[in-house]
Amino acid sequence: MRRTSFETLQCPIARSLDRVGEWWSILILRDAYLGATRFDQFQKSLGIAPNILTRRLVALVEAGMFEKHRYSDHPPRDEYRLTDRGRDFRPVLWALLAWGNRHLAPEGPSVVIVDAETGTLADPVLMDRTSLRPLKAPAFRTAPGPAANDDTHRRHALPTTHSTIPAIHRAARPTGGTHV
Amino acid sequence: MRRTSFETLQCPIARSLDRVGEWWSILILRDAYLGATRFDQFQKSLGIAPNILTRRLVALVEAGMFEKHRYSDHPPRDEYRLTDRGRDFRPVLWALLAWGNRHLAPEGPSVVIVDAETGTLADPVLMDRTSLRPLKAPAFRTAPGPAANDDTHRRHALPTTHSTIPAIHRAARPTGGTHV
Repeated sequence: MRRTSFETLQCPIARSLDRVGEWWSILILRDAYLGATRFDQFQKSLGIAPNILTRRLVALVEAGMFEKHRYSDHPPRDEYRLTDRGRDFRPVLWALLAWGNRHLAPEGPSVVIVDAETGTLADPVLMDRTSLRPLKAPAFRTAPGPAANDDTHRRHALPTTHSTIPAIHRAARPTGGTHV
Repeated sequence: MRRTSFETLQCPIARSLDRVGEWWSILILRDAYLGATRFDQFQKSLGIAPNILTRRLVALVEAGMFEKHRYSDHPPRDEYRLTDRGRDFRPVLWALLAWGNRHLAPEGPSVVIVDAETGTLADPVLMDRTSLRPLKAPAFRTAPGPAANDDTHRRHALPTTHSTIPAIHRAARPTGGTHV
């Protein structure tokens, strides 16, 4: 996980990625939501190298997503239990799942979300809890919040359509270098 | 982006990560949603090395998130426009944003989602479009879908609480190695 600057990390998306934004971490969380708590359960499911798994589990504990609980003293063995913060990440994963099913599953969905009691298929959509409208652009947009710094304000001042990019943006191109 | 096996990639979460599951890609999409289309806009916002940015933009075009459009012939310059697939990823980012605001912003939110017309603050929650219930465990869970293979079925057969892990899982521990 590489940081460009602390400035960038004011963005809640960047901060979130800094904690869990890694392929393996997200698949470890996926398996945790399915009931995995132990090293070999994760390892078996993911086919991941032990040293990488160890590193990711430590990072997820540090990020406050897991709590470590010793379940055996001889030999010493820990299990990884989801914290509230870790559990609360599940809708993010499910939003990702829904997108994957829509765009990357031409053969049909291999995993779906269902009502745990009735088995009825759910249709996941991110909504505004109050107005019950789907959270989509252009009806909704992001805006600087109360704790926004200059960087966040500047980022939200970008033109919203490519046809209205002012000349000043073109002038900002660094000289030299092969740009795509 | 490393693949363990195509088996793993049946999972819609793993497939999604395989396309966009990289810190920079997600921040590039974030900036695209704010109106960035050009190399130097992304570069300025992200402070990213040009070679890494080039690689990520190419990957996002290959993943079908962006389409390249030439906007200048002398010098040759392209801009990156979001496709339907790319635009449809926005709620995933917003779910991540909401989680970051809840768990990683002790000083208050720096970015919020608002109604674009009224500026009213939105309260993002992943819901079932039909029943309008929040998609949370244990009321909802994932289940193998119509296209599920053995691996997906096996993953969903994991015990759901750590107190009921059967002995066979413990026996699956590989010998040797320092496990956490």
